[in-house]
Amino acid sequence: MKRDKGILIVLSGPSGSGKSTVISALLKRRDDIRFSVSATTRPPRPGEVDGKDYYFIGRDAFERMVDEGAFLEHAEYVGNCYGTPAAPVDADLDAGYNVLLDIEVQGAAQVLAARPDAVSVFLCPPSLDELERRLRGRGTDAEEKIKSRLATARREYTVAGNYDYIIVNDDAETAAVELDAIITAGQCRRGMRLKFIQEGVM
Amino acid sequence: MKRDKGILIVLSGPSGSGKSTVISALLKRRDDIRFSVSATTRPPRPGEVDGKDYYFIGRDAFERMVDEGAFLEHAEYVGNCYGTPAAPVDADLDAGYNVLLDIEVQGAAQVLAARPDAVSVFLCPPSLDELERRLRGRGTDAEEKIKSRLATARREYTVAGNYDYIIVNDDAETAAVELDAIITAGQCRRGMRLKFIQEGVM
Repeated sequence: MKRDKGILIVLSGPSGSGKSTVISALLKRRDDIRFSVSATTRPPRPGEVDGKDYYFIGRDAFERMVDEGAFLEHAEYVGNCYGTPAAPVDADLDAGYNVLLDIEVQGAAQVLAARPDAVSVFLCPPSLDELERRLRGRGTDAEEKIKSRLATARREYTVAGNYDYIIVNDDAETAAVELDAIITAGQCRRGMRLKFIQEGVM
Repeated sequence: MKRDKGILIVLSGPSGSGKSTVISALLKRRDDIRFSVSATTRPPRPGEVDGKDYYFIGRDAFERMVDEGAFLEHAEYVGNCYGTPAAPVDADLDAGYNVLLDIEVQGAAQVLAARPDAVSVFLCPPSLDELERRLRGRGTDAEEKIKSRLATARREYTVAGNYDYIIVNDDAETAAVELDAIITAGQCRRGMRLKFIQEGVM
């Protein structure tokens, strides 16, 4: 059977939401997930591989891609540009892979505007109290950093309602089951299947 | 942990789509599914239990319930009235069960108009050719009946696009996995979780 076209999943979550643990658990459940590789104008660090960690490109090339609408989203941080090139994402989707974009809320909003058929998921810890407990539990962050992260999370919580789905990360395994289900359900949306139905009727 | 409110799932599929097999497979995967019980004005058949097979009620009572908007959907077939009472469905949803309405397309359209937050799923066989093969494979139906069912299926296919999700029943087990995923994803929709987020922020 020919593999269906994959779906684009936009995943955001505040720092401390446990996103990387949930993604690891998801990858144990599915083998059809690909991640996007960002392009950046910042120089590679030792050990970073072009096309794997990032696409390292010059500022001229970056700005040309912006002008051509070649990015799903892009932004500038501390003097360097970062963006998600659309072409490799579309190649993976066409090959039947589901592409996961792990991205903060501003970037997510850009992607969702460009790709209204993307499935968006907001991952959050059980509560701000629990998030604070987790951040302190790490024992690595200075008080100021914890406060700043909580403020960011509070701000990000208010945008959760812009996402299709909200996963409350009480437990990483359960959260991964839910993310898995959201992807499977996303593949069953009528827009993904109508072509099949039409062909069946012909 | 308090159980979340359940979701209402509206499932339709043409005769021969394999709906009952898929539902059986779903029930092996989940223990949080309840079915609605229809009300009818037709007299009980031997062995049928009131409140289990149907709520058997008089025509006056039925019409009063219609006037009160007490049905999620209702219709008349060959002189008897059938309807889905909303109250028991809501009681199950409030208790945290996911309620599955196995219903034909006209009834489904009524439910979806009354309950826009319901998740709707259209189950179909791989193709009309495959449906025909299945109907003939039973060896029980007269030619005329098979032709009539195929015509009905062709008509129903054209409404598949009114449903949120389309499951193509190539294989009942895979279809059940997809229906299971759609229910889990339905529970993660932002509308089901925003209250939690708001409480978390308070």
